[in-house]
Amino acid sequence: MKHDEFLCELFDAAVDAARPEHTVQHYLPDPPIGRTFVVGCGKAAATMAKAFEEAWEHPLEGIVVAPYGHKVPTKTIEVREAAHPVPDLAGSEAALAIQALISNLNPDDLVVFLVSGGGSSLLTLPAEGISLEDKKELNTKLLQSGANIREMNCVRKHLSRVKGGRLAESIWPAKCVTLAISDIPGDDLSVIASGPTEPDETTFDDARAILLKYNIDSPKSVIKFLAAGRTETPKLNNPIFDNFRSHLISTPQQSLEAAAKMAKEKGFNPIILGDAIEGEAREVARVLAGITKQIVRYNQPITRPCVLLSGGETTVTVKGNGRGGRNVEFLLSLAIELEGLDGVWALAGDTDGVDGTENNAGAVIKPNSLKRAIEIGLDAKLMLADNNGYSFFEQLGDLVITGPTLTNVNDFRAIVIE
Amino acid sequence: MKHDEFLCELFDAAVDAARPEHTVQHYLPDPPIGRTFVVGCGKAAATMAKAFEEAWEHPLEGIVVAPYGHKVPTKTIEVREAAHPVPDLAGSEAALAIQALISNLNPDDLVVFLVSGGGSSLLTLPAEGISLEDKKELNTKLLQSGANIREMNCVRKHLSRVKGGRLAESIWPAKCVTLAISDIPGDDLSVIASGPTEPDETTFDDARAILLKYNIDSPKSVIKFLAAGRTETPKLNNPIFDNFRSHLISTPQQSLEAAAKMAKEKGFNPIILGDAIEGEAREVARVLAGITKQIVRYNQPITRPCVLLSGGETTVTVKGNGRGGRNVEFLLSLAIELEGLDGVWALAGDTDGVDGTENNAGAVIKPNSLKRAIEIGLDAKLMLADNNGYSFFEQLGDLVITGPTLTNVNDFRAIVIE
Repeated sequence: MKHDEFLCELFDAAVDAARPEHTVQHYLPDPPIGRTFVVGCGKAAATMAKAFEEAWEHPLEGIVVAPYGHKVPTKTIEVREAAHPVPDLAGSEAALAIQALISNLNPDDLVVFLVSGGGSSLLTLPAEGISLEDKKELNTKLLQSGANIREMNCVRKHLSRVKGGRLAESIWPAKCVTLAISDIPGDDLSVIASGPTEPDETTFDDARAILLKYNIDSPKSVIKFLAAGRTETPKLNNPIFDNFRSHLISTPQQSLEAAAKMAKEKGFNPIILGDAIEGEAREVARVLAGITKQIVRYNQPITRPCVLLSGGETTVTVKGNGRGGRNVEFLLSLAIELEGLDGVWALAGDTDGVDGTENNAGAVIKPNSLKRAIEIGLDAKLMLADNNGYSFFEQLGDLVITGPTLTNVNDFRAIVIE
Repeated sequence: MKHDEFLCELFDAAVDAARPEHTVQHYLPDPPIGRTFVVGCGKAAATMAKAFEEAWEHPLEGIVVAPYGHKVPTKTIEVREAAHPVPDLAGSEAALAIQALISNLNPDDLVVFLVSGGGSSLLTLPAEGISLEDKKELNTKLLQSGANIREMNCVRKHLSRVKGGRLAESIWPAKCVTLAISDIPGDDLSVIASGPTEPDETTFDDARAILLKYNIDSPKSVIKFLAAGRTETPKLNNPIFDNFRSHLISTPQQSLEAAAKMAKEKGFNPIILGDAIEGEAREVARVLAGITKQIVRYNQPITRPCVLLSGGETTVTVKGNGRGGRNVEFLLSLAIELEGLDGVWALAGDTDGVDGTENNAGAVIKPNSLKRAIEIGLDAKLMLADNNGYSFFEQLGDLVITGPTLTNVNDFRAIVIE
């Protein structure tokens, strides 16, 4: 039995569950008395816009911004493209155009905000007086500082004209419905694209304290902006949110459930370990290898034949010079740990279709992967040490290549145990 | 409800299941026509010897070797003490005494070999011409070489008068029954204490190839020993093993099952993830935190209230200057990842009662651990970066201290989710 094909079907089922054309139609708001404006950002912005305008039977106009190469033809909504993950001027121009479109509306109007992962860098509009270059410089320093994602987002939200509910301020007094595809552990709406239409829990004092705590040498424009008295980002009890509603239309968990359903139909017991598994990719692989061995040996925590499913986002601490994203790094480590264990097959891939910066979504491993690698002269351990997972699976012919899927619910991992 | 007490009860149940006084009696061999000799080594050597002589209703004599401080009073069997994990002369002297005792036996005699984790360094007798210092030097080089545990064991077995079935050669033509307590992922008898009474799958050619492969600059005595034609270690089909039997009397899995049974009796759903979970301690914690969050949010892969159980051996790549073994490192990382998640409690401990080289077996975390840490001025992340888990839990008053348990089935981890 060729379980690699089965694994690809599971991956497709997971991606499919997150495609806007299957979900947006179920979350259409009531048509407003006034006008309808559709704006949005993220890897799925174009496909969400297309799905929305196909399902919406009323007049609308709109602008969304997607990463370069993520455009699909739309009828009414303008799709712009911009840079990801490092923002560029095209993103700022799109943000200005969106701001202009949804400002000065009235209470009878409706704004539909379509948001997905990657939106944060696509919809970038630094606060007044701060250049895009200054913002990038601060961002780099934040990333190196040891601050956690929550702390970094707090600072970012307070230096933006879009993030942390700033877009909501522009939309008010119009109504707003946010439709979100989550690629975030925990599915926190205020974290997806830094929550342009969501209340912000954090304050300017928090942001200043974080820059102090990590001793960050901020650009002068940032220091100047933060020194002045500023209006706080809108909080949960702010009346502007009275006519705002948000819906998670796709989540990592829903995609795992879709794969679990398919596995069950094919006679495999599914077990979902978590939709938000994090950790160093090669070490996550060692833990999942340990669980796999327990299943093989004791039928615990689930009975064979089974599929071990998980989502979330692993990390890679790059020490080598090889090629590949976190999913091939995970798989290469898993193959080494499993040592060709009989009857075990696995797939890991990014549901957006891009593992890291390569052309593959992920790869598969088979019981004979290590053996075949040795036969063609590949040293799995050396290649893992060099973070060279892409080359390993490329040479085995075991990459999974889908192209950009135009949606994104983070990583998908499946281990099939006969 | 004070789940920390419940967690300590689970840990006790796991350790208790591995105590020789509860198990040895079930594996007594038939008394021989001739004499009975009891020999052994490992962290549980003294307690195994005591349990054996109490259950054995026939004459016997014997010598076992335990780590310093692991002695218990015995009636007939002599308990010697030696150094662990770095061998000393006391261990070699004990090995010589044991060799003398079980050599020149006849087919009517019986040798009972009691083996547990740590036995490899306690029962050290280098091959002729190789000094203990040379062996230690080679060992250090092997550890730094990148060779895996299988490769290192192959070399060690071929430079020993005890390991890799060499003790079996001395015992023959007497019968032999090995009673083993496993602290080894996979419970491979030929790995526990390097299998003194087990067939060896590896060869002198393998050993020489490994030293070449890793370009190891061996001491002259080792080069000289390996250059000469040597009799191979005994293999599986060797008739000396015809009257040899081996029993695993305690395993990590049995201890996890004992804790699972107790959890069930107390109304908690147990789930055993694996008896051999390996990986960098702080990263293993991140994965188990991810599974814990899935249980809290979705009651997957098990329904609350539940206990998430696992065994095996994590590793710590030391980068800081703090104190503590792998279990407190795991727990400190887990506490950081869980961020005070309500209703979640955890314990991790080494079943031998010694986490690393400190006086604690492990520690517990409670939902308020991080909060209490902040109150007394502890920075959890900084302390994790400094590998300072011991100090963290010591200052919280949350260490678990049992003293040496005189048995060893590796690590025990339990996460209680209300």
